[in-house]
Amino acid sequence: MPKLWDATIDAHRNAVREAVLDATAGLAAAHGVASVTMSQIAEAAGIGRATLYKYFPDVESILRAWHERQVGAHLHQLQAVREQAGDPGRALVTVLETYARICQAQHGGDVAAMLHQGPHMAHAHQHLQTLVAQLLADGVRTGDVRDDVPAPELAGFCLNALRAAASLTSKAALSRLVAVTLAGLRPPA
Amino acid sequence: MPKLWDATIDAHRNAVREAVLDATAGLAAAHGVASVTMSQIAEAAGIGRATLYKYFPDVESILRAWHERQVGAHLHQLQAVREQAGDPGRALVTVLETYARICQAQHGGDVAAMLHQGPHMAHAHQHLQTLVAQLLADGVRTGDVRDDVPAPELAGFCLNALRAAASLTSKAALSRLVAVTLAGLRPPA
Repeated sequence: MPKLWDATIDAHRNAVREAVLDATAGLAAAHGVASVTMSQIAEAAGIGRATLYKYFPDVESILRAWHERQVGAHLHQLQAVREQAGDPGRALVTVLETYARICQAQHGGDVAAMLHQGPHMAHAHQHLQTLVAQLLADGVRTGDVRDDVPAPELAGFCLNALRAAASLTSKAALSRLVAVTLAGLRPPA
Repeated sequence: MPKLWDATIDAHRNAVREAVLDATAGLAAAHGVASVTMSQIAEAAGIGRATLYKYFPDVESILRAWHERQVGAHLHQLQAVREQAGDPGRALVTVLETYARICQAQHGGDVAAMLHQGPHMAHAHQHLQTLVAQLLADGVRTGDVRDDVPAPELAGFCLNALRAAASLTSKAALSRLVAVTLAGLRPPA
């Protein structure tokens, strides 16, 4: 087989895989992640059920792959927001606001708990923890962040505090949560 | 059957049930909650395996009953601490410190995620959220707590923030987490 053919096959496989994950995301958003079935996913992705089973053995494995892609996209978004912010103080605020918005959009329940147990989540949390700890260390240098608590501990504090966004329904409440969290980070008077 | 006999039977059943949960707690503490088996529990509780199966169908149901008892004990402890504290400002600090210590002692993993999905947890969280929101509303009246954010939102902030204690290993780090959380609650300068 020529290499070009292998590349074509790979590209096709990736395109089908992405279509399956997009279809799953659409169904999960419309009807809730717990109700999604293999038949619905195949139909929404425009492939046969038999083809779908060549890619994924069950709904759980699709949900895991979809969740992994979601988590990766969120990390990417947080890094982009950080780079666009320019000065360190602004970067900390926008990264925390963006993380709070991501948490607000999350849904709980059994499926979420199952997905959050994957090894990709431990890796993503570590990544996020490091990103925020670096921003906080920058903030300590500029005097915007308290220096009496190690930056990794402050990062754990903010990331947990902002998860309270999951039960908030308004933008105003989200802004208040970010403000209260930032107040905890400021140097004591 | 006389009523006295029924009462004796009930007391015996409760005693066996408690012994099973105590045995499970001991095994979970010694070897981790994920490795506990029905045989180990029966042996540690001093009953036969057949008797154990008359009380609980599987390890999961025992772990759920044990976890429910644990969560109830933690709520009881938090309420006791609140009542002993006397003045409202002191009550808020000691309740938050106690909750942080409870979170620090928790273990994560698949089993913990499974146990935390039970309806008793939703109920316990609601209870805890109400307890802390009341303490915060008291704090607003005495001027110790900021009045620009509704007390239930502040309660969600503290309880999430203090869950960061789960990854802290020292008492000093725990005190720092409580201090940072309290700083977020204070009236803005």
